[in-house]
Amino acid sequence: MNRKKIWLYDTTLRDGSQREGISLSLNDKLQIVRKLDEMGIPFIEGGWPGANPKDVQFFWRLKEEPLKQAQIVAFCSTRRPHQRAQDDPMLKAILAANTHWVTIFGKSWDLHVTEGLKTSLDENIAMIEDSISFLKSQGRQVIYDAEHWFDGYKNNPDYALATLQGAIASGAQWLVFCDTNGGTLPHEISQIVAEVVEKLDLDLNDPQGVQLGIHTHNDSGTAVANAIASVLEGATMVQGTINGYGERCGNANLCTLIPNLQLKLDYHCLEPAQLTQLTPNSRLISEIVNLAPDDHAPFVGRSAFAHKGGIHVSAVARNPLTYEHIVPEAIGNERRIVISDQSGLSNVLSKAQNFGIPLDKSDPKCREILQQLKTLEHEGYQFEAAEASFELLMLEALGKRHQLFTIKGFQVHSDITVAEQIPYTHALATIKLVVGEQELLEVAEGNGPVSALDCALRKALVKFYPQIANFHLTDYKVRILNSTAGTNAKTRVLVESTNGQQRWTTVGVSTNIIDASYQAVAEGLEYGINHLRQNSPMVVERS
Amino acid sequence: MNRKKIWLYDTTLRDGSQREGISLSLNDKLQIVRKLDEMGIPFIEGGWPGANPKDVQFFWRLKEEPLKQAQIVAFCSTRRPHQRAQDDPMLKAILAANTHWVTIFGKSWDLHVTEGLKTSLDENIAMIEDSISFLKSQGRQVIYDAEHWFDGYKNNPDYALATLQGAIASGAQWLVFCDTNGGTLPHEISQIVAEVVEKLDLDLNDPQGVQLGIHTHNDSGTAVANAIASVLEGATMVQGTINGYGERCGNANLCTLIPNLQLKLDYHCLEPAQLTQLTPNSRLISEIVNLAPDDHAPFVGRSAFAHKGGIHVSAVARNPLTYEHIVPEAIGNERRIVISDQSGLSNVLSKAQNFGIPLDKSDPKCREILQQLKTLEHEGYQFEAAEASFELLMLEALGKRHQLFTIKGFQVHSDITVAEQIPYTHALATIKLVVGEQELLEVAEGNGPVSALDCALRKALVKFYPQIANFHLTDYKVRILNSTAGTNAKTRVLVESTNGQQRWTTVGVSTNIIDASYQAVAEGLEYGINHLRQNSPMVVERS
Repeated sequence: MNRKKIWLYDTTLRDGSQREGISLSLNDKLQIVRKLDEMGIPFIEGGWPGANPKDVQFFWRLKEEPLKQAQIVAFCSTRRPHQRAQDDPMLKAILAANTHWVTIFGKSWDLHVTEGLKTSLDENIAMIEDSISFLKSQGRQVIYDAEHWFDGYKNNPDYALATLQGAIASGAQWLVFCDTNGGTLPHEISQIVAEVVEKLDLDLNDPQGVQLGIHTHNDSGTAVANAIASVLEGATMVQGTINGYGERCGNANLCTLIPNLQLKLDYHCLEPAQLTQLTPNSRLISEIVNLAPDDHAPFVGRSAFAHKGGIHVSAVARNPLTYEHIVPEAIGNERRIVISDQSGLSNVLSKAQNFGIPLDKSDPKCREILQQLKTLEHEGYQFEAAEASFELLMLEALGKRHQLFTIKGFQVHSDITVAEQIPYTHALATIKLVVGEQELLEVAEGNGPVSALDCALRKALVKFYPQIANFHLTDYKVRILNSTAGTNAKTRVLVESTNGQQRWTTVGVSTNIIDASYQAVAEGLEYGINHLRQNSPMVVERS
Repeated sequence: MNRKKIWLYDTTLRDGSQREGISLSLNDKLQIVRKLDEMGIPFIEGGWPGANPKDVQFFWRLKEEPLKQAQIVAFCSTRRPHQRAQDDPMLKAILAANTHWVTIFGKSWDLHVTEGLKTSLDENIAMIEDSISFLKSQGRQVIYDAEHWFDGYKNNPDYALATLQGAIASGAQWLVFCDTNGGTLPHEISQIVAEVVEKLDLDLNDPQGVQLGIHTHNDSGTAVANAIASVLEGATMVQGTINGYGERCGNANLCTLIPNLQLKLDYHCLEPAQLTQLTPNSRLISEIVNLAPDDHAPFVGRSAFAHKGGIHVSAVARNPLTYEHIVPEAIGNERRIVISDQSGLSNVLSKAQNFGIPLDKSDPKCREILQQLKTLEHEGYQFEAAEASFELLMLEALGKRHQLFTIKGFQVHSDITVAEQIPYTHALATIKLVVGEQELLEVAEGNGPVSALDCALRKALVKFYPQIANFHLTDYKVRILNSTAGTNAKTRVLVESTNGQQRWTTVGVSTNIIDASYQAVAEGLEYGINHLRQNSPMVVERS
């Protein structure tokens, strides 16, 4: 048993937010940092106060309401060439952030010193030393990020090592190897880290001595493997981001690294109870940054433990080890039996169990549901990605479905008029339905025919079910099935809805895209309303 | 210099299509296999003819129109326990696929033999041997996929090795180590592959001897690193999928592996000109399977070589090596910095050349086209998979577009009436347009609003352009762009048309799906009509 401690260092708020499409508000950052703190991440990089004024405010707010256990870290470059450290505005700003720990990054690659900084190799080492010494003199603990470490070492190992020696001499507690361009492969990482330990004669077992860290990017698709390779050579700090967010192809994904290190290599990263927060936090943070969660992400993805096909399913039921590399519950994920064409009775039964619907293998309803499933899938329905619709189908077969209303019909008009080459579009929908005893006729406009219909339906129902004011659609996907039929093709529409907390997906199929959309939207409302009203055990989160 | 040949083996059509949400038509599969063949992938797994009747048809179609250079491979399990190989229906089906190469998978892990197959360990080895011997006797070349190899070897190395010895003895040419559950880490892969080579006393340099392959899954986020680790230990076949599609967290991503192996480790996978097809093919295949391309994918993602921030940009401009791990053009990707980027211009020029449109670099129209392209792509248009629309855009900018008609407007009505719980749907479109001097008003019905509009448009135009009677739509794809906007989202419609000989694709974008469909359908007709009339060199096949 290993149980060596790995110090996780999260940089979602700084490096992660460099991803194209992410733009974090102060509030987003505060929400994320508190979640990471609760989960037990020991170091959280909050930002670069010298480069980003919004980050200054963030550090202030954390002074007012401190974190529970995590060290919040401020990030900064070394002083500029030929300037005194105490006069450097960046270093002044990092001091003003008033954190116990700071991370300073400096150049390891001679090319970047001469081409980028346009200064001498000696001056670069002085910049590293002065900056660290100054911060130490101000009572800070220093992590030194060696930028472009691996490229630098490959090109000029002696110089690269000299920059690290400067950092050690001036009091850095951690040396972090950064693969800034993300171009290094795992076997190179192993070799270079081992060489550095030897050449610098580091005693990594000395608790007072300097320790090693790793910071990788995913440009070669090996960020996680690269970080693991460093840990196997003695690195004890791992820098990364939640969901692997980051510039270009992203940073090392902590949601992948943490379970690999803890569950497979037996390092200690988090307490077991904290580890079960990994999947919910991965999804919550994707909501906060407003990006769709990656269903196929290792460990935390919705599909990571999804099983298709009868043989798999019955084998997993007997012995999960046969088709699962870890226990999904350890990281707060769950096994999912995917309902599809190929599925057998065992799939239907285990789905019913998930939904909390009592159903016995010997019940003839069981085979009926399977038959209906196959018929509908043959027609083009797809329940794999529309579990809410499948649940409604099951409830209906068992006589337990509660229909909210009876539809009488709807009409959708979509007009485009082109005047002076400029098109004017208009869409309008009318709908007629019966709720209880009451017949309702509603009309609404929209950006297009589907949104008009959606609006009309909501307008009719909101009087009876006020909670739908909080529902909204988070995704709307359309697939043409028999595409060779062109515009006569059957259309499958998947609609994902949310009530702000849960998400669920419903499906509709028709040759008429408006009809297919209607089916999916209407089932989405029914599912959401029945869930909120009944709060029954059948309804569990399907995000 | 290394230049050792790596035999790529693509399984997008079989293992890749196991990804939740992918459902490939016969036509999709044929389109993908031809692209992979053109790119120079030597082995392409076409499917499992015994398990999937649709795959049988696929192999038949490839007999009619064979591939240029690739070996198409049929996939199958070993015979069932206690059955003669020649009587096994699966093995009969794989023979009927009539391919030169077959891949047979068998069990390596004793647990799966006893728990899954419920047979004896000896019988499992007999199943492997009999199946391979039988296929060899029928003139097939055999690749043996050792399922659950690494888990099997860890649990019972002697038994796992005995299964491989059986495969070698019965004539398999390749032994492929499959990390079926995706739970193995790179350092374990290196160690186990090296041990197997030693224990089986394999001479991997003997061209007549058995060769090794690797098949990895991404459940630990290390599929690519695992494949590389095997190659470094002597494996010469790499199995994977385009864009890493596959069950759960996907398979090893060939779009990541190929550049790593060829550009960094100096193996030979593809010809350099074929390698430049990697990015376009990654994106085209994501269109075919109707999944949004991953902008952050290593190497081929839109953001993979995107540079933010002033320092980066000027450093990259001076010396790309400073912030880029490879040259993006080598794989057909491009650096993205600023809007007036030179590579954009050269794109436009090379497209014009493709289309046979004379255009000079110094022509200010060139920059105008680029600007318009960027504006439209920002709005959600995508011309990568819609070259016919891009050609029309170019011709328009150059004052050479021949518009067939002027649209005045259209109205689409779609009614659904539910009587006795049975829905009756009706869709009708009216359209007003001007051809030459003549104003036309037409009306048509359809299965849905888009087909009604398509019919009305054709009805109006067929009098002037009788050839459109032979046109039909071969594909109609819809993608929602800003999906979080729900039914208010922008819709992008891609329409593929054919005249029986050529195929071409057009695009439309709007918040109104009817409007977006109209744009794509109308451009499709225009492109087809002008092509047939002029028979100009600008019109080439765009399938």
